Amino acid sequence: MQPALNQFMEQQKDIIMQAMCNLIESLDIPQTLKGSMLYSLQAGGKRLRPILLAASNAAYEQNAKSIQSSAIALEMIHTYSLIHDDLPAMDDDDFRRGKPTNHKQFDEATAILAGDALLTYSFELIATDPVLTDKQKVDLIAMLSKASGPSGMVAGQILDMEAEKRLVVLEELERIHALKTGALLEFAIVSGAYLGNASEEQLSYLKTFAYYIGLIFQVQDDLLDETGDPEKLGKPVGSDVANEKSTYPKLLGLEAAVKMKENYVNKAKTALKAAGAEDSYLMALTDLISKRDH
Amino acid sequence: MQPALNQFMEQQKDIIMQAMCNLIESLDIPQTLKGSMLYSLQAGGKRLRPILLAASNAAYEQNAKSIQSSAIALEMIHTYSLIHDDLPAMDDDDFRRGKPTNHKQFDEATAILAGDALLTYSFELIATDPVLTDKQKVDLIAMLSKASGPSGMVAGQILDMEAEKRLVVLEELERIHALKTGALLEFAIVSGAYLGNASEEQLSYLKTFAYYIGLIFQVQDDLLDETGDPEKLGKPVGSDVANEKSTYPKLLGLEAAVKMKENYVNKAKTALKAAGAEDSYLMALTDLISKRDH
Repeated sequence: MQPALNQFMEQQKDIIMQAMCNLIESLDIPQTLKGSMLYSLQAGGKRLRPILLAASNAAYEQNAKSIQSSAIALEMIHTYSLIHDDLPAMDDDDFRRGKPTNHKQFDEATAILAGDALLTYSFELIATDPVLTDKQKVDLIAMLSKASGPSGMVAGQILDMEAEKRLVVLEELERIHALKTGALLEFAIVSGAYLGNASEEQLSYLKTFAYYIGLIFQVQDDLLDETGDPEKLGKPVGSDVANEKSTYPKLLGLEAAVKMKENYVNKAKTALKAAGAEDSYLMALTDLISKRDH
Repeated sequence: MQPALNQFMEQQKDIIMQAMCNLIESLDIPQTLKGSMLYSLQAGGKRLRPILLAASNAAYEQNAKSIQSSAIALEMIHTYSLIHDDLPAMDDDDFRRGKPTNHKQFDEATAILAGDALLTYSFELIATDPVLTDKQKVDLIAMLSKASGPSGMVAGQILDMEAEKRLVVLEELERIHALKTGALLEFAIVSGAYLGNASEEQLSYLKTFAYYIGLIFQVQDDLLDETGDPEKLGKPVGSDVANEKSTYPKLLGLEAAVKMKENYVNKAKTALKAAGAEDSYLMALTDLISKRDH
């Protein structure tokens, strides 16, 4: 019998945390760089991406060893993107999850380099994985670099910056989110199933599932910024309105935004059934992402 | 008959420039990002790394198609490192090769993201190369990520920053240069020969050759900053002394630094002969790098 979702999530969080830290600790690299990389990797967070990856893998032929390098690489790339995002030239954030951001704890130069190092090392990690075949490594690196590069996450960052302080239409908003956060979520879901030997057809349905998961994640993010509990969120609310950001509630109104999210949840679940993964953790994770309070 | 070295270098410069620009132009990515990536890729430079890669390949079984993605990836990673290096938080340079640096031409956020995009796309390019085998792709990505990541170039950057404004001993200076510039030069030389089916033994001698090439490059850099012609260099001289940087002339004196360089040239050529590449462009390139005036 499978453990309950909460237990599965806690397990995966522990696994990824321990594996990442052991790995970075074992590297023969300059102390400041190691400290800065570890600082942000250890700064907490939901570990949603590696959890989705593991859940997706468990929906097919589960193999904990084969997913390890991809899960770590994914979380390292997510972490690098947060470090660079927080820089003064970007979002200029002093705190993340209640702790000083990387450039506040160290300095800007170190933060830039720690981000560069995490990004670069992600690919080295997969390329030198002792359990994957060469074909698997190449497929995973191709997927991960595409998801995080100039036609994926980085494109989303640029478009998001350019969209600041002006009202965008819903289609543009969805395109930005699909690139900025959706691309890495898709990698999580597709790579986990790929390593579980899911069929091409199943992978194709999972891409649709991942697309809606990304949007659900974002609508809920926007809703929490208007209606969430600052204590549970660990950050103040209302910043989107203050920053004149284009959000789902702003474009649609609160009630319609909630409706739209429910519509996305239905579409995600339909795709998940078509992918033959309706009895997996991914089903419960869909509701959890839709209803999360932080 | 092989073309003369100058002609070979011009050819390779044209090939890499055209291939890089065509490639980036063809990408379906946001316009600002594309413009910023292209700006720095087109900003000129000696293209020393792709030339060394092609020269090393030509010393064994020359295959222009097989080296293309590695040569472009290498130049893109070199370019990303310059963009991030020039940022206000790092070297804070307003000009490079007589043109505004990336963050001056665009803005800091765009420069950070253009660097991230070039780095990430390098790995996508090799992973999706249509002519390489999966094993070749994995080997190349493993080599390139190691050379440019936290135990390679990024380590060199951090150590270089930490060594600023204090005098380091010769061994530390060489370690910094071996990481900061040597690691990518080694990738150029080793990957070219690897794709030319050089033997393990030959590759091992080429690593030694590459190590000395990196040091020759650096000693000459230091010498040019003291004795070079600002017009030929395209930048003012004397900045190392002004910045109290540890350099070979400072640690050894001018004459001994020249002697040391000559000693490195001999060692490089001995390694090159052992690698069976004494009749290749690499031989003449060694002298050229040692005697360059810009």
